Amino acid sequence: MAPNPVIRPNQHTITLLVENQPGVLSRCVGILARRGYNIESLAVSITEDPTISRVTLVVSGDERVLDQVLKQYNKLIDVIKVVDYTQITSLYRELALIKVKAADVNNRAEIKQFAEVFRARVVDVSDCSFVIEVTGDTNKIDALIRLLQPFGIVETVRTGAIVIGRGATPATEEE
Amino acid sequence: MAPNPVIRPNQHTITLLVENQPGVLSRCVGILARRGYNIESLAVSITEDPTISRVTLVVSGDERVLDQVLKQYNKLIDVIKVVDYTQITSLYRELALIKVKAADVNNRAEIKQFAEVFRARVVDVSDCSFVIEVTGDTNKIDALIRLLQPFGIVETVRTGAIVIGRGATPATEEE
Repeated sequence: MAPNPVIRPNQHTITLLVENQPGVLSRCVGILARRGYNIESLAVSITEDPTISRVTLVVSGDERVLDQVLKQYNKLIDVIKVVDYTQITSLYRELALIKVKAADVNNRAEIKQFAEVFRARVVDVSDCSFVIEVTGDTNKIDALIRLLQPFGIVETVRTGAIVIGRGATPATEEE
Repeated sequence: MAPNPVIRPNQHTITLLVENQPGVLSRCVGILARRGYNIESLAVSITEDPTISRVTLVVSGDERVLDQVLKQYNKLIDVIKVVDYTQITSLYRELALIKVKAADVNNRAEIKQFAEVFRARVVDVSDCSFVIEVTGDTNKIDALIRLLQPFGIVETVRTGAIVIGRGATPATEEE
């Protein structure tokens, strides 16, 4: 299967299912840090089972180093499952909240039109700003931010990417 | 100003602006881990300035321990800014991808109706499953997951919460 087109060369999206205990996350992040491996984004959240957390890492760098990192993850007893999504047909999604200057009436109309095209939503309005909520892959969010830049971006907050395999099976239960 | 209603007692949402360098994230997470402090969710992503990452932590536990943690963060040279959003009127948002069983025609119709009510979107369809994308505060996402549970949830992937202050000023630049 072809890798997902939104993935850049040397970029990998890794999911870890880990025991939800203090220290586990720190160890997982530490393994990458000690090898100087760059974390582009990281999302950690609970799962259906509150004793288990899901960690989604977007990393880029040397493939051989990543192989070693994945082997180390597989050896940690607090790590229940490791999945590299690079070769799995998947949906990548990220959420961003973009606060953009919108004091001028014409600008307000134009910003709303851009938001519509991107299926984004205006979720907060002040007399001189909008907060826009948008979801999509990283490229789509980058594109909307670029479009809004001329109006003046006050603040951008992003979640980092999460990933789910297409089709009916859960990738994190596959062997 | 009243704290945001979605925040549970002893729960804090903290934003750190940190230098985007290997090891920084590991140190920040390690400080919490060493004090046995529980991280409910964590989102790390780049900012407009690629040398700076934004870390959003949702944590819960003893207030005095958290005070100490925040003081330690303020002392780290790689940490540029620390904001506790608990007393700031803010928007909290999280993204979830929910894979739910949908082999039966009636179930498909019902799931689509639930998705509509929650302003969620069906973003992938197989012959026996849907993937639903939903954004909202943690309570809203929990509610949709509970509604979908009777159909059979295959997999849920969540980003963890991010936060942005209401109004025109960026909270991460306030002094």
